[in-house]
Amino acid sequence: MARENIFNFSAGPSVMPLPALESARQQLPDYKGSGISVMEMSHRSKLFQDIFDSTKLSLKELMGVPDTHDILFLQGGATLQFAAIPMNLIEDGCADYAVTGNFSKKAAVEAEKYGRVNIAGDSSATGFDRIPGQEELKFTEGAKYFYYCGNNTVYGTEWQYVPETSAPLVCDMSSDILSYPVDVSRFGLIYAGAQKNMAPAGLTVVIVDKALLGRELPFTPQVMSYKVLSEHDSMLNTPPCWCIYMLGLTLDWIREQGGVKAMDALRRERASLLYDFLDNSRVFKAHALPGSRSFMNVTFSTGDAELDAEFIKGGAAIGLLNLKGHKVAGGMRASIYNAMPPEGVQRLVNYMKEFELSHV
Amino acid sequence: MARENIFNFSAGPSVMPLPALESARQQLPDYKGSGISVMEMSHRSKLFQDIFDSTKLSLKELMGVPDTHDILFLQGGATLQFAAIPMNLIEDGCADYAVTGNFSKKAAVEAEKYGRVNIAGDSSATGFDRIPGQEELKFTEGAKYFYYCGNNTVYGTEWQYVPETSAPLVCDMSSDILSYPVDVSRFGLIYAGAQKNMAPAGLTVVIVDKALLGRELPFTPQVMSYKVLSEHDSMLNTPPCWCIYMLGLTLDWIREQGGVKAMDALRRERASLLYDFLDNSRVFKAHALPGSRSFMNVTFSTGDAELDAEFIKGGAAIGLLNLKGHKVAGGMRASIYNAMPPEGVQRLVNYMKEFELSHV
Repeated sequence: MARENIFNFSAGPSVMPLPALESARQQLPDYKGSGISVMEMSHRSKLFQDIFDSTKLSLKELMGVPDTHDILFLQGGATLQFAAIPMNLIEDGCADYAVTGNFSKKAAVEAEKYGRVNIAGDSSATGFDRIPGQEELKFTEGAKYFYYCGNNTVYGTEWQYVPETSAPLVCDMSSDILSYPVDVSRFGLIYAGAQKNMAPAGLTVVIVDKALLGRELPFTPQVMSYKVLSEHDSMLNTPPCWCIYMLGLTLDWIREQGGVKAMDALRRERASLLYDFLDNSRVFKAHALPGSRSFMNVTFSTGDAELDAEFIKGGAAIGLLNLKGHKVAGGMRASIYNAMPPEGVQRLVNYMKEFELSHV
Repeated sequence: MARENIFNFSAGPSVMPLPALESARQQLPDYKGSGISVMEMSHRSKLFQDIFDSTKLSLKELMGVPDTHDILFLQGGATLQFAAIPMNLIEDGCADYAVTGNFSKKAAVEAEKYGRVNIAGDSSATGFDRIPGQEELKFTEGAKYFYYCGNNTVYGTEWQYVPETSAPLVCDMSSDILSYPVDVSRFGLIYAGAQKNMAPAGLTVVIVDKALLGRELPFTPQVMSYKVLSEHDSMLNTPPCWCIYMLGLTLDWIREQGGVKAMDALRRERASLLYDFLDNSRVFKAHALPGSRSFMNVTFSTGDAELDAEFIKGGAAIGLLNLKGHKVAGGMRASIYNAMPPEGVQRLVNYMKEFELSHV
């Protein structure tokens, strides 16, 4: 099927802005008359350093990252950060974790290797269908940080507020970074795997308050020490150059669209289309509760696994790809990141309407 | 300058086969009629799984990896492996390291965080201009492994033999993997950052004897445990999909050229052109001693830093790029990996001849 008829609802890696992909194509195999491709550039060359610097500056400007914080371009995905965060921040103490989905749970389990972990909030009892309110969170005095996952890709819930606590906030923004304005100064550390809203898989962005650097446990690998990485401006070793370049092209596109405020308006438009339909549907039901619903991953089901499978298969046949829910959640999931055009969501809603009409 | 007049001697990231880059271009933004690019594919999709499986099989076939060993596609570069190797293999014991250059030295220093490190060989006294002979290596009884770096990118030396010892061999093949036939069964672990002979930066290939799995230290991050990674076929989390895809395209090209035997013939041809000239030059002198010389990175200098700088600048002006030596070694370095056409080396030698004529 031709690309213009395809809408890719994959949870990650996921759809990227077409102009970014077109630029990448045009600059292969010869980047701006240099005679070589970005994949072949020494990371120590001026050619690549310019790409690196302008990408970092773009991200700093678009997210409003203050000078108190450094931006790191790393490898290893969120899963490596599950270990790196306690290695760098927990010292000989404890940390508070909110468990609101699959990945925050994994992060909490991994952190137990490095220190004491207190569960400050947990929505597992209701199938991770909600985000705990501020008043429900149980903070520990002296905790080295409070960890939460801003958007739960698997269950389709999203924190609609920034928790308040005296410990530094650590937030996994893998699936909603750059989709709305964030006051970065409120966070000790923000991180995100790039493969949802930013770039191809293989890049992890870490934004860290410099005041938190230098607290690593003694066995921390050098390339996982935020302090060492910050001192080397992410180039202790070769960074994931191609992914950084693609992030730069994505950021160009976001800026052209009007920045994160424009992304926020778009995400509200896309999500409303789906949730409004779901709340009035006789066949489909949204998984997440109002007030906790994700703007990025909309989870729903018919309540009947066979019917779900029929819906997913029928969608793929007309170019609505990857609507299957995560294996631990079941049902359907429509991931509607920054690069998903509202037209794609409208097509999905149209298909859901047709499906409903033929199944009531 | 047009690509056909450019020869990129960068030590890494470095030149890639043009047909691989052309295929990548053609498959952007629509991979084989799927309507999406490889950068947008879910790593759990059949589309990507096919790329992953065929790339892994290609590498297994081209390198002759026996069924006793598993191939892992990881992130973090060689620098993360400097920690991962002792974390996974040193247990409560010690390991032997041969220090023959910049990166083996860094690996040995990092390993000291996790266990006792014995230096089994060291060529620092003579400026890393040689590889110790088998009879010079001092092995420790009961060492959990013997570590060496097969090719020293910075100083331009290469092991021309596989050391014999009772401990499992661990070899950093970052800069000479796939350039000659290797009997993988003799190794406990082979690893390589991809950005020299394989793929863009962001992928690390680890080939590990399955008999060595399951010995991790308790604080090993889950995503650094070879056992966990092997159990999940490198997909505990999202792998660096684009780099794996590019590796597949590079392997297609190697197969079309005749496999690693053909690569070996080519590397001998390229290296002879340079070393034969250097050994008869009145201006240039090779750094590495005969018998220890790298087929991948040829290091040399005029003995005069100003003259070196003039040579490097003049080379860049005629399309011979990135001839500057590593900062810790100085002088010049011509990295002539698999994808460097012999024509590029011939052009370099021609330029050296001209330079010599005008400077004697």
